[in-house]
Formats: sequence, structure tokens, C-alpha cells
Amino acid sequence: MSLLIRGGTVLDATHAYRADVFCDHGKIVQIGQNLDAPAGAQIVDAGDRYVIPGGIDPHTHMELPFMGTVASDDFFSGTAAGLAGGTTSIIDFVIPNPQQSLLEAFHTWRGWAQKSASDYAFHVAVTWWDESVNREMGVLANEHGVSSFKHFMAYKNAIMADDEILVNSFRRALELGALPTVHAENGELVFQLQKQLLAQGITGPAAHPLSRPPAVEGEAANRAVRIAEVIGVPLYIVHVSAQQALQAIERAQSEGQRVFGEVLAGHLLIDDSVYLDSDFTRAAAHVMSPPFRAKEHQDALWKGLQSGHLHTTATDHCSFCALQKAAGRDDFTKIPNGCAGIEDRMSLLWHYGVETGRLTPSEFVQVTSTNAARIFNLYPRKGAIEVGADADLVVWDANATRTISAKTHHQNVDFNVFEGRTVKGIASQTIAAGKLVWSAGDLRAERGAGQYLSRKTFAPYFEANNKRRAANSSAS
Amino acid sequence: MSLLIRGGTVLDATHAYRADVFCDHGKIVQIGQNLDAPAGAQIVDAGDRYVIPGGIDPHTHMELPFMGTVASDDFFSGTAAGLAGGTTSIIDFVIPNPQQSLLEAFHTWRGWAQKSASDYAFHVAVTWWDESVNREMGVLANEHGVSSFKHFMAYKNAIMADDEILVNSFRRALELGALPTVHAENGELVFQLQKQLLAQGITGPAAHPLSRPPAVEGEAANRAVRIAEVIGVPLYIVHVSAQQALQAIERAQSEGQRVFGEVLAGHLLIDDSVYLDSDFTRAAAHVMSPPFRAKEHQDALWKGLQSGHLHTTATDHCSFCALQKAAGRDDFTKIPNGCAGIEDRMSLLWHYGVETGRLTPSEFVQVTSTNAARIFNLYPRKGAIEVGADADLVVWDANATRTISAKTHHQNVDFNVFEGRTVKGIASQTIAAGKLVWSAGDLRAERGAGQYLSRKTFAPYFEANNKRRAANSSAS
Amino acid sequence: MSLLIRGGTVLDATHAYRADVFCDHGKIVQIGQNLDAPAGAQIVDAGDRYVIPGGIDPHTHMELPFMGTVASDDFFSGTAAGLAGGTTSIIDFVIPNPQQSLLEAFHTWRGWAQKSASDYAFHVAVTWWDESVNREMGVLANEHGVSSFKHFMAYKNAIMADDEILVNSFRRALELGALPTVHAENGELVFQLQKQLLAQGITGPAAHPLSRPPAVEGEAANRAVRIAEVIGVPLYIVHVSAQQALQAIERAQSEGQRVFGEVLAGHLLIDDSVYLDSDFTRAAAHVMSPPFRAKEHQDALWKGLQSGHLHTTATDHCSFCALQKAAGRDDFTKIPNGCAGIEDRMSLLWHYGVETGRLTPSEFVQVTSTNAARIFNLYPRKGAIEVGADADLVVWDANATRTISAKTHHQNVDFNVFEGRTVKGIASQTIAAGKLVWSAGDLRAERGAGQYLSRKTFAPYFEANNKRRAANSSAS
Amino acid sequence: MSLLIRGGTVLDATHAYRADVFCDHGKIVQIGQNLDAPAGAQIVDAGDRYVIPGGIDPHTHMELPFMGTVASDDFFSGTAAGLAGGTTSIIDFVIPNPQQSLLEAFHTWRGWAQKSASDYAFHVAVTWWDESVNREMGVLANEHGVSSFKHFMAYKNAIMADDEILVNSFRRALELGALPTVHAENGELVFQLQKQLLAQGITGPAAHPLSRPPAVEGEAANRAVRIAEVIGVPLYIVHVSAQQALQAIERAQSEGQRVFGEVLAGHLLIDDSVYLDSDFTRAAAHVMSPPFRAKEHQDALWKGLQSGHLHTTATDHCSFCALQKAAGRDDFTKIPNGCAGIEDRMSLLWHYGVETGRLTPSEFVQVTSTNAARIFNLYPRKGAIEVGADADLVVWDANATRTISAKTHHQNVDFNVFEGRTVKGIASQTIAAGKLVWSAGDLRAERGAGQYLSRKTFAPYFEANNKRRAANSSAS
Repeated sequence: MSLLIRGGTVLDATHAYRADVFCDHGKIVQIGQNLDAPAGAQIVDAGDRYVIPGGIDPHTHMELPFMGTVASDDFFSGTAAGLAGGTTSIIDFVIPNPQQSLLEAFHTWRGWAQKSASDYAFHVAVTWWDESVNREMGVLANEHGVSSFKHFMAYKNAIMADDEILVNSFRRALELGALPTVHAENGELVFQLQKQLLAQGITGPAAHPLSRPPAVEGEAANRAVRIAEVIGVPLYIVHVSAQQALQAIERAQSEGQRVFGEVLAGHLLIDDSVYLDSDFTRAAAHVMSPPFRAKEHQDALWKGLQSGHLHTTATDHCSFCALQKAAGRDDFTKIPNGCAGIEDRMSLLWHYGVETGRLTPSEFVQVTSTNAARIFNLYPRKGAIEVGADADLVVWDANATRTISAKTHHQNVDFNVFEGRTVKGIASQTIAAGKLVWSAGDLRAERGAGQYLSRKTFAPYFEANNKRRAANSSAS
Repeated sequence: MSLLIRGGTVLDATHAYRADVFCDHGKIVQIGQNLDAPAGAQIVDAGDRYVIPGGIDPHTHMELPFMGTVASDDFFSGTAAGLAGGTTSIIDFVIPNPQQSLLEAFHTWRGWAQKSASDYAFHVAVTWWDESVNREMGVLANEHGVSSFKHFMAYKNAIMADDEILVNSFRRALELGALPTVHAENGELVFQLQKQLLAQGITGPAAHPLSRPPAVEGEAANRAVRIAEVIGVPLYIVHVSAQQALQAIERAQSEGQRVFGEVLAGHLLIDDSVYLDSDFTRAAAHVMSPPFRAKEHQDALWKGLQSGHLHTTATDHCSFCALQKAAGRDDFTKIPNGCAGIEDRMSLLWHYGVETGRLTPSEFVQVTSTNAARIFNLYPRKGAIEVGADADLVVWDANATRTISAKTHHQNVDFNVFEGRTVKGIASQTIAAGKLVWSAGDLRAERGAGQYLSRKTFAPYFEANNKRRAANSSAS
Repeated sequence: MSLLIRGGTVLDATHAYRADVFCDHGKIVQIGQNLDAPAGAQIVDAGDRYVIPGGIDPHTHMELPFMGTVASDDFFSGTAAGLAGGTTSIIDFVIPNPQQSLLEAFHTWRGWAQKSASDYAFHVAVTWWDESVNREMGVLANEHGVSSFKHFMAYKNAIMADDEILVNSFRRALELGALPTVHAENGELVFQLQKQLLAQGITGPAAHPLSRPPAVEGEAANRAVRIAEVIGVPLYIVHVSAQQALQAIERAQSEGQRVFGEVLAGHLLIDDSVYLDSDFTRAAAHVMSPPFRAKEHQDALWKGLQSGHLHTTATDHCSFCALQKAAGRDDFTKIPNGCAGIEDRMSLLWHYGVETGRLTPSEFVQVTSTNAARIFNLYPRKGAIEVGADADLVVWDANATRTISAKTHHQNVDFNVFEGRTVKGIASQTIAAGKLVWSAGDLRAERGAGQYLSRKTFAPYFEANNKRRAANSSAS
Repeated sequence: MSLLIRGGTVLDATHAYRADVFCDHGKIVQIGQNLDAPAGAQIVDAGDRYVIPGGIDPHTHMELPFMGTVASDDFFSGTAAGLAGGTTSIIDFVIPNPQQSLLEAFHTWRGWAQKSASDYAFHVAVTWWDESVNREMGVLANEHGVSSFKHFMAYKNAIMADDEILVNSFRRALELGALPTVHAENGELVFQLQKQLLAQGITGPAAHPLSRPPAVEGEAANRAVRIAEVIGVPLYIVHVSAQQALQAIERAQSEGQRVFGEVLAGHLLIDDSVYLDSDFTRAAAHVMSPPFRAKEHQDALWKGLQSGHLHTTATDHCSFCALQKAAGRDDFTKIPNGCAGIEDRMSLLWHYGVETGRLTPSEFVQVTSTNAARIFNLYPRKGAIEVGADADLVVWDANATRTISAKTHHQNVDFNVFEGRTVKGIASQTIAAGKLVWSAGDLRAERGAGQYLSRKTFAPYFEANNKRRAANSSAS
């Protein structure tokens, strides 16, 4: 049950220092130089490598039923792939159908997630509104450890949250001390542009980005920010992909709002030329929303990450195989939206972030792990290397390289949007809950080993937010 | 039928120069120094005063049926008051009820407007959507001289245009070469804030600005801008009152969109402390939407006007008497929204604009007349002093003063939000359609003398906009 | 002496309308439909073409002694080339050496300019400071019609104006009602970067843009803006080439400062790849300061022009032949800085501005003529088509095309940075001072026909500026 | 030699948790729950209070010879006062006269600082330039632990660094891995405005802010940022007091530069009305540069701190007594510039920061201690509570209050700019180097107990900066 990581350099969100880390019963119990391992303890030799907090992917969709099919990675295969890449926790999404009980959906997802190899938490989506939704948000927050709620501003006639839902749900979240999050795209514009493109006979994947231009995202991000401002609640915007959305976030931050931004590895690295691929399968494999953008957005997103205007990196991992994607062969609006990435995020961030000097090593830890833990109130159980924290650790080899490929990845999908990229910086060992689950290419993920992460409401920034509201209203 | 203005300094949107102006049959027929008046011509001695183009108020609501009552100034009394202040044209709004034919409403308003003392045009509001609306927009634009359409983003459950209506109507306007305009407030937020305030027992006029904070306007302005960007259509935002909305406009302009902004005299000069007046009648008299704002917004609006980010000044003239306002004595949401102003706009702009150096004299003409004429495609028939233009002229005494008061104004309403202000710069004579209708305090407005102004579509900026769209799409 | 332009469409800064224009004794004396020509009047048949105000190039350097040589176009050849392209006035620069009397330099330039074929005015540069400079600025402004002064923030150890000079000169300009203008580049940074590049052995033209990156311009533009803000004086920034400088201007405008921006045809259209040309002669021919920029700056500049954040277009016409440029073959800092352009500006602006929809036809007139006239207080003598204005007119054929080439241009230089571009929109006839000086390819420019344009101080915007200062200081 | 803090809640830059802290030989040696104290260990009972890292004031001037006098707090009295307020380290400034050897000045200051009661480090100012300065910067950085250099952009004719010095010094700092810092005010403008005000007979303290308006700071901040951009070096801007300067920082951060901002407690809380005090002594007591600003700047600064655009808080502690200030009774430019504050910063930040919800408790630690440690490369020796760190700790009573007064403060000065403010949140005990030096009102500061803090160059952000430069230049 015990494990000693020896000889490494602990790298956390603040600095790097030489130390061994001893884990027992799933927790970190000692950090120090030249620790002695008790008899029977497993020894992991970190060599001269870093020891970092396990990655947290705050945005995944395992085995999601979506657009008439189901995402090909289930909670086991998806989380196992995560472990191979150094990600030891995910936050997935419960997405009730409109009119469905949130609690019922929550329990459904909890059931599916039993098979997870790593720890997991849930955001719950608010896709409709009535008094029962209001009540069940409270039950979820207070009794089931759900301290964040998701709102899709896109997907009209399906799960789209209109302003009425947003206002009601944001206000309820404020009461509960739970963080509202939004997928920011103006669903009406997307809907109309899709119709128009199809009417013009533009039916292939190249139409996908045309149906969701950056302004569509910029509009929705700003709307969510302003609604949050009026309600007085913190806000988290998922998968920021467009400069206009980033600017809306920066404005809000400068004006004193607590707004957090997430960026996907894909949006940092892939541009919209992929949709022009004449091979439908390849082009369709990149269909996700928001779509990949023109190159200047990538530059802006990296700067947003470096400057701290964006806080977390995620993947929106939602994998569909070529056969599934083929459903949209004659109509791009029917291509299941989603790409994989959970296995590669950490390496991509190191390679393109740290190696290029955009991020310091500690900033890498912040954006791959610590910030997500703090925003979603899992800190310091997750995201930290300190005594008492969960023993989710990665031996990180900053000098090793690997070439990403669907042929070798552990994700259950036949395509990898990062195919062929050779990245420097890899997880050589992953320890989850104190167990060595990935070691030099050997994946020992265990079905069902992951635990559900119950999260408290009223994170510290939320308390500050509410003090500020009180101070402001007494001032006026 | 002929009239000579002698001895003045013509001041137009570009410069000032000494010249006489001779009018005949309602038109300007000669401009020059030392013109001879034909026998029988009426002589107006301009002394050393300016001769300026008659003011255009692009935003009025005469005899509007609204919130259970009807605006107290009808087309005659309202336009007559305008003439007394130097405003010789208005653009009023046809506001069909949802499900009502646009054409039917248009004809109703045309009927009411027969009594106008000055010329008038109409914007038509799009308050709902179906194929008939789409068709009637075309009829109005192509057969009835309506080249601008209005959208209320506020007034949920009444005339609010949601995103679906906005997108459809903006697209139709693009086809027609007609300018979409918006009242930018997020109607859902207003609705919810009103409910919440009433539920908290905050029922007086002080609740009015709380129910419509600046973010509500900033959100809607940005949304309209982004929808216009996606559709590719120019946009005009009425009564910009909040810095956040102004900034959305500035961003759009910097990014190459053709977005125009209008500001009301009231928003330039009155702050939100008026709602704290303990006298209900006084406080309620200031209830209009968007509400008056905190002082810093006034400063921003003046800078917006000076820098050219805002283009026109208007009044949103929509007068209600104390008895009418009393309908909301127990519920601020029932106070008829609206204030008067058509009579005072020109003097206020001169006094607070030119006398303070914010505007040059020519910029004054631009923002009170010429810009509105150009944006709404009335130029140079209106807004210019040149041969062939309508003989709508004002002899402007930049040195005279008057004190504004409900006791002396010609507006048919018992309150004046500018009460007691002494302004420098007044209309000493007003000539409309070549007739002297206001002279040194003598108002000779004639019921029914005003003509309907039919406007063409595809103003020059609209043609440029469409060329740009074509150039961009061939480039990509 | 008289001339009638018949059958055209007058296009000015506000609109287009069918009218003939009759000129006599160098002035426009009548505008109207179907004018009769007196006996002996020359008839110019405008066909269906536009008649526009002659272009004003507010930034030229004819026969400038600079960097050890003299610009190859003198006042005759340069202004003659301007006439061929539709430009009928220039504002050139008197550049005293440090310690030289401003008046002495002014008279020197006046002497050179006697040979001009078109009208001309002068900005005078302030390159040093003492009490005599202070005094002579007054003499120039009050007695010699110089109402704008230039400051080079670059060219250290030569004509650079440091902050001390800027502050003193801006303050003096404020007193005089004269407009300060700046060449905005941080001279110290340029100097140091040049030294460093040479020390690294990077000596060719490719080093030129590296020695003057956009931040160097952004810094200086902002500095000039802030100094003007503190002094309280309007400001004009010449040849804005970098987005950072444009943003500094936009900020100032939004904050209520009267700041004007000029952009060169070259910066709108040419990017910095030209400096990588392996042919020294070609690369060196593009060496001017600020240098041509990366493509994204061009897009920003066009948007600045369209949105009205930039007001004028110019050329910085300063031509050097290959032999002259060769002086810097081994040291890029010795390549005489400057490019030609006066002949092509108008066509380039029409082709890339109006034809692409970035500008309306009237906006084209504004940015090529009217705005310069208004800012530099030549309006309405120049920049307008109205009775009493100078008869500087161009018959503009919006449908004709020509291909730009050094082989055919009239500029006295062996290179054209726009070589090979085919532009739509050309001057088919040019009338200067009421004479036909260019007609269908026949250039009849007359040596010495141009007159010096004496300009008044205290333009209308300057008076407003000063009223505003007074209002602000009485408020605080 | 050993000391146990028992029963507290450790609060650091990331979170709060229950733990005892055991210190020995000046270091933290154990952190955990229910620690046993060895025999002889001193016990500090933290009750239910927080245990936080000792404050770091990165901007002080102890016993500074300035403007003809010497700051009244010497290194002992000043640091002792700091300990009473919870500040356990300072970074002071070595300010060589122009032409003076940097090393000589450094040794002079080192001598003065021997008497310090708390640890101290030094920034060294670069006030002139030649090859010896270049060389001595290297000696200081590589041999004397000076990894930051200061530049005064104000104080013309004294210690002002002009662009030539800035460019040379920034480039040298880049080579050395040392952080350039700037006092951002345009010295030329200040100089000229001072002259002008004196000439106008405006000689009292009310002239002070008029001689240094916000634009003066905004200009210099932007200039420093742009020079740093061109050189490619990180930058730290001290005492940001004006919104314009903050905006320059935000722009730089958004564009990917590593720029840090510091704000003083005074600028967060005091507005410029103090200079209108009719009592010279009171008004003069507030004279410091940059001056206190109009209220809207305070709001902006707080938002800058909350959003992370500003990183550190300081005091610019530089105390002068009334008698010293009186030197400027007839000439405000002779009032010694400076205010005290080291004793009160921590309480002010808690009271106005945490209690109002602008900052979370951990953000308070970041801005009062940890960020300074990280930026100036003292982390984790300072700014952290972890094993191995210096035992500089404060028992922080978040519920206790005290009223600030010159009558009771420990600073050696007869005035307190925060006089009479009652603040919640005080240092109940301070431990420096493992010793209890302040306990419930009993100040046990020991003369000479403080150690010089030698700092390494190339902090992690600096390494990232250099990697980024390399990546960018290989890309282009």
C-alpha cells in the first residue's frame, strides 16, 4: 500500500525543489530529502526527473450519448488513457435532457462512471428550467458534491440554455456557492448559419467553421459575462477558442469580476485549415465545437494562458470513430461533434508551453492541474504535492520525447488530431491514489479504481465574491 | 412663397461662411452674398447670427400607444414644439403589435402623422417574425420609403425581439439595403430584475435604474453588434446611454464594421440621482429606458460624440403627464416609460457641446442634423444648406439664452426634465419648407403642413458595406 | 482664363450629385446643372465621370537635402507628377538644421519651391530649442502662414526632438493656435538597434525593419499623445504605420483628445517582405522610415482609415534613385530613407479603398483631400467644390485602369514601389488654379505656376480645444 | 533557539489549513498537526488565528539622503516598525549619484543597513551610464546578490534615467538575468510643469499633483514597457498609481510580455484631496511621487490587484518629519518627497482588501509577501511556509482591530497618512528568523539582527522569457 518516489525534483505550482515523496493508503504522507522507505514499500526511482501533481482535465465527455451515438471512450478507457498521459482526475459532465430530472441524470452518469480508472467529479448541465430544477440544483450542491453547473449556449432545439435559463440558473448558483460554467456560442446564429449553408448546398466539413465564426463565440462569452456581472456570480467559460471571447474575459477581469477561462490543447495547436482536407474522414475527425480557428487565435490563446487571463487547460475529450463521424457525410450538422485528447494534453502543454518559454515549469503545473483544483474546489486534495493530499503524482521526464499517434495511443478511437507530432516532456510514471498505474509504457489502469470526488461549495474566491457584493451594496 | 434669409453666416457640417439664402417653393434656390430678394419675398434678417440646417430628431414617439396609455404629444403638438426649438424633421417609429401586419401598422401611423407640422419619416419595428413579416419588410422598403427597421431587445412578453427575430430581420435588412436599428437592453435580465425588485418590496422609481443596470445595455449592444458582424449588415444603436455599450460600438468600428450610435440629450446631461427624488411625480417623470446613468457615463458619452464614435443626437421624445405616470405609483414597472425633449435638444447641444468646446460649431450641425440625414438616407435633401435642398433652416442665435421650463415650453406635457437650465444658443427663427414657422417666440406651426419623407434604400455606406462583403468573400 | 467642366457628377466629402462646374480666374464661380459656357471658355467634358476636389498630399519632401544627398524630385518635377495623379496641393516640410534659424530655413525652402507646378504650403520642423526658436515660431505662424510644426522623434544626433523640445514646442504651438505634428519613432531605440545590428554584421536592407520594430513607433506615438494631453494641445501624427501607434491614437480620441492620424499609401499596401529581396537595389528602394510592416498592420491601418481614427492619406514622397540608395550598400543606416508616391496615391486609394468597399466615394474625397484641408486650415479654399473655392479639380474616371510603372510615371526617380499594380480609378483630367494641366495622358504642368498657401492659425477644432481647456480648468 | 507556533491555521499563497509550525535555528523545520515542542522551545499560542508568511515590502528607502535631508527612519527604526506590522523583510534601494560607482554606493548602503532589525535586500539604481556602470552591474549581479536594478524616469537634472540609460541598462539586465524596475514618470514634463506652476505663483502643496498628472505616469509606464518589449527583458513597474499606467501594464501582459506591477498602500487608499488641506504641514506630509490621485484611480488599482495585473504591494516608505517637509514651505518642489507606511501596509491590505472581498485570504498573502519573493527571486526562502524556509512568520489576528496613529506607531516620524483609520486584521505576533520580535504590543526588535539577502539572477520567469526569445527568433 505504500510507495516511495525517490530522487526526483518536486515541481508544483510555486517552485521546484529536490525531495522524495512517500505515499501510503492513497495519500502523500511525507515529503523530504533522503526519505527511508519502510519495508514493503514500492520504490519508484524518479531519476533526475520532476515529480508533479497528477493532471486534472476539467472538461471530458466519456461515453456521452450525443447526436445519435455514444462517445467511443467510456469512463474506463478514457480515464486509463488519461493515466498514460499523466492525467489522474477528470471532471465530466452530466447532461440531462430537457425535462429530465437532474438527479436522475446524475445517478445515470454516476453509474456509468463506476468503471473509471481514475478519480472523477461531475459538472451538471442545466438544460431547462422549472422549480424542480431549482430544487435539484440545491440537492446536487448540498448533498452530492456538485459545485459547478454547465450551460450550453449553443445547440438550439436541444440542450441550449437561453437567457431565461441562464439568469435563473446563475442566480441559483450564486445562492448555492456553486460555479456556473458556459459553453459560449450563440445557438441561434449557429442554427441559422447551418440552415443557410445547407440551403446553399455547402454540406461538407468545410461548412462547420463557417457556421460557427469567432463572433458567435465572442457574443456568447460577453453575454455570459454580463449576465454574471448583473447577477454578481463568478463565472467559468469552457473551451475559449476565439480572441473575441478572450477579450470579453479580460475586460471582465479588469473590471473586477471573477471570471475564469479554460482553453483546450486542440485550440492552442490546431488551425481551421483541417476542415479543408479533401478527405472527409480526416476533416470530419476534427469536427468539434467551437471549431478550430484561424492561426491568429492560437497566438492570442497562448498569450491568454501565459498572462493568467486563462486559467486551465482541458481537452473536451469526446471521441468518435470514423464510422460514427460518417453519419454526417452528407450533412455536416450531423457529424458527431468531438475529438479525443486526454492522453496528450500534458505533453502538448509541456512541449509547446514550457519548451517555448511561454510557461515556466510551475505555470505548467498551474494550468494543467492546480488551477483546476482551486477553481473547482478540489484543492489541496488535488493539484498539490503536500502531506495529506491524494497521492496522484506523475514522474515527468522533461527530456524524453514521444510521437503522438492513433496507432499507439490508449484512447479508444481511431484518430488523433495531434497525429505525428513529436513532443518533448512525457509522463514516465503515473501514480494514482498511491498506486503505480503507468510505468514506462506499461499501463496498469484498473477498472473501477477511481473514486467519485465530492466537492464543497463556496470556494475561497466565492466567499470573497460574496463579501464584495455585500460591501458594494452597503456602499451604494 | 419665397423667402430670403439675409445677413447671416451659413454654418453647415463642414464650415461657416457669410451668405444669404434664398428659398422658393420650399427649396433652397440660391446661396450667395448680397442676394436680391424678388418682390414679395419674405425677408428674414439673420443679423449676425448663424443659419443652420434644420435639426433632425431621428428618434421620437408621437402619440404612441404604450403601457396602457398614449403619449401626450401628438404629431402636431410634438412637431410644433420641435419647430420652436429648431428641429424641422423627425423620424418616428411604427410599432406593430406582435402578429400584426407591418403594413397595417404603417398605415395607421401614417394616418396619425397627417397632422404633423414638420416633415417626418418612419422606422418600422420588427416585433415578431414569419414569412409575412419578411415580405412586408420588402414592401415597406421598396414601395413605402422605409429604409430602416427597429428592434427592441427589451420589453419581454411584449415587443421584444429575441435572437431569432434579430437574425432573420437583420438578414432581410441586408438584402433590402435597409438599416437595422436596435434598442439595446437585455430584456430577460430586465424582466428578472424587475420581478426580483418587486418581490423585495422595492416598488418605487428608485428601482427603475436598478432593474436596468449598464451591463444590461452593454450586453445587448455587443450582441447586436456581433449579430450584425456575422450577418454582415450595418447597424445603428439608438439611445446609447452606458459606457459599456459605447465601448462595444468602438470595438466594432475599430474592427471595420459600419456601426452607428445615437445618444439622447437626456443621457448626456441627467444622472441617476433623479430617481432618488422623494417626490414620486418628479422621480417618475424621469422614468425612461434606458434610464439615466451615473455621472461617469455622461462624460463617456460626450467623448463618444466628440470623437465621432457616436453620430447622432436624439430625444426619444415620448411624453407622459403626471397623471399618466401615476399608473405606476405602486409598481415602477407600470410607470409609462418616456420623457419629452424635442424642443430643447438643439439648445442643450449648443450650450453643453459648443460652449464647452466639446464640439465645434460644424460638429454641432453634424450631430444634430447632417449625420442623421446621411445615415437615414435623407441627405442632401435634409441636413445640408445647398441649392436644391429642402428649405428647412434655422437662424441660430449663439449668444442668446433662454431658461427651459415646462411653464413655457410648447411640448404638451406638464414636466421638463431640463427644467430651470439656462442655455445659451437658441433658434431665433425656424423656416420649414420655406415658411417662417417660428420667429422670436411666435410659433406659427401649421397642422398638417409636414410631409412624409420617403427614403431610399442602399445609402452610400450600405453600398460600400456590400462591396466589402463581396471583396472579403472572394478573398477567403 | 475660364473653364467649364460639363456633364460630370460632382463628388465631394459629403455626397455626389450631377452638376457642371464653371471656373474663372482660378476660382470656382458657379456650380449647377446645364451651365452655359461664356465665349472663350475652355470646355472639359467630364462624360459620366466624377468631378472631385484636387488631392492634397500633406506630407512630401521635394528636393530635400538628406543623408548626404538630395531627393531626386524637385518642387517642379514632384508637383507635376502629383498633377498627373490628381494631386493639386502639397504640404512640404521646412527642416532647419539644429542651431539654424527657422526663418532662414523657411526662406530657403520658399526659394526652392518657387518652381512648383501646383500650390504648396509648409510645415516647419522644430529640431532644436532656444528662445529664438520660440520667437521665430511666432513669426512663422503670425506673419508667414505656417500653422503647423513638425517634430522628428527619430534621427538621434541629427534632427531628433527630445522630450524637452517636444514639451517646449507643443506649448508654444498651443499659444499660437498651430498644430504640432510628429514623426513617431523612439530615436534612441532606433539608434541602439542600428548599432547592435551593424555590430552583429547585419548590414543589408533586411536590417532596416529590424532596427525600427513596431514597438518603437507605438512608444513614440503614445509619448507624443500623452505630452499633448498634458499640454492640452491638438496633435497630428504623420505616417502611422503600426497598429500600436494606431491604438494610441484611438485611446486618445476616446478619452476626448483631438488627435489626428495620417497614413501613407505605401504603408497601406506594401509589407516588410520587400526588405528580404536579395537584390540590393530593389530592397534598398523600399527603405523609408517607418519601414513597411508585417501584413496585419495593413489590415489595421485600413480599418483605422475606414473608422475615422485616421484622417488623411499622404505619401511622404521623398524620392532617391538607385545610385543614391547605393550609398548604403555596405551599411543599411546609410541608405537614404524615402520612397516616391505622389503620382499614385489617389488611384491606389480608389482602387484598394473604394473598389473594395472600405471607403465610400465621399470618404475617398475626405481622406485624399478634404480632411487635410480642414486639419491644416486650408478649407474651404482647398478640399471643397463650392463657389469661391480654388479651382483645383479632377475629373475622375472610376472605371478606367492604368498599370503603375517607373517606366511611365512622371516622378523623377527610377523605381516605383507600386510597380506593376493595375489600378482602377484614375485622374483623366486635372485642373489646377482653373487651368487644365493634365488631360488624358498629356501633362501640361507649368514651372512656377504654383502658389504658396498661407494658412491661418486657430482652426475651428483648435478653438474648440481651447474652449474645452478653459471649461475644464474652471470646473476643477 | 527553537520556537513552536501552536494552534493556528497556516495561511499561505494557496490555501489555509490547520497546522503547527516548528522553527529552529532560524528556519522552519516542521509543519504538522499537534507537533510536540522539544524542551526549551518557546511556545507561541496562535489561538484560532492565522499563521502567515512574514510580509515583504519590496520598496523602502531607509535613511535615504534625499533633497537635502535624510529620511527620518533609519534601517533600524524602519525595519523595527515593519516587524510591529508583520513585515519581516524589505528590499531597499541603493541610489548612486550620477558619476558615482555603483559598487561604492552599494557598500555605503550595506554599511548603513547593518543596523537593520529584519532581513533586507537591495535594488541598485542606474542613474548614469558608461562602461564602468555596465561592468559594475555585472559585479553586483554575479558577486553581490543584486538581481534587480532601478531606474528613475523622473527627477530631471538629478537621478533621472533618460532613454539612453534605459536602453543600455535594460539590455545589460537581460544579459545578467536581473530584473529592471522603473519609477515611471516623465521627468521632462514634471520639470516643465513645476517651472510653469512656480512661474504662475502656485507654490504650495496643491501644486504637487498638478505637476505630475496621471498622463505623466501613463506615458512613462508605456515607454518602459515598450523599451522592455524591444529589448526582450521582463520589467517591474514600481508604485503604479494611475489607471493609464495600469492599462499599459495590462496591454503588455495581454501581448505576452512579462511585466509586473507594484502598488502602494497609500495609492490604494488616499486621494488627492489631501493636497488641498489648508494646513501646510498636513498637506506637505502627503507629498510623495507619484502623488495621490483622484478617487477613480483607487478603484482601478484595487481591480488591478484583484485581477492579478498588479502583483505586489509596497509602501515606498521614506519618512520625513514636519521640520524636514518645511523646507518646501515656499516652493513645493523643495518639499522632501516621501511618506511612511511600512508598519501599516499589512493591516490596511487585510482591512480594505480581504474584509471587502476584493482579495481572498490567500491572495492577501500573495500580494503582501509571496509574489514579491517570487519576482525578486527570494522564494521559497521568503514568502512561503514550508520546511526549510526562513522562519519569518506572523500570527495574524483577522478579528482584532487597531486604530492607526502617529501617536502610537513605531515609525520614526511625526505623521501618519493613515491617521485615525481603524483597521481589522493585525499582526499579533511576529517571528523573524525564528525569534519572537513582536508580541501583543511588545516590540523586541534587535538592532543588527537582520541579514543581507543575497539574491540569485535568472528567476524561473526570466528563464522562460529567454526561452521565448530564442523560440521567437528561430521562428522568424
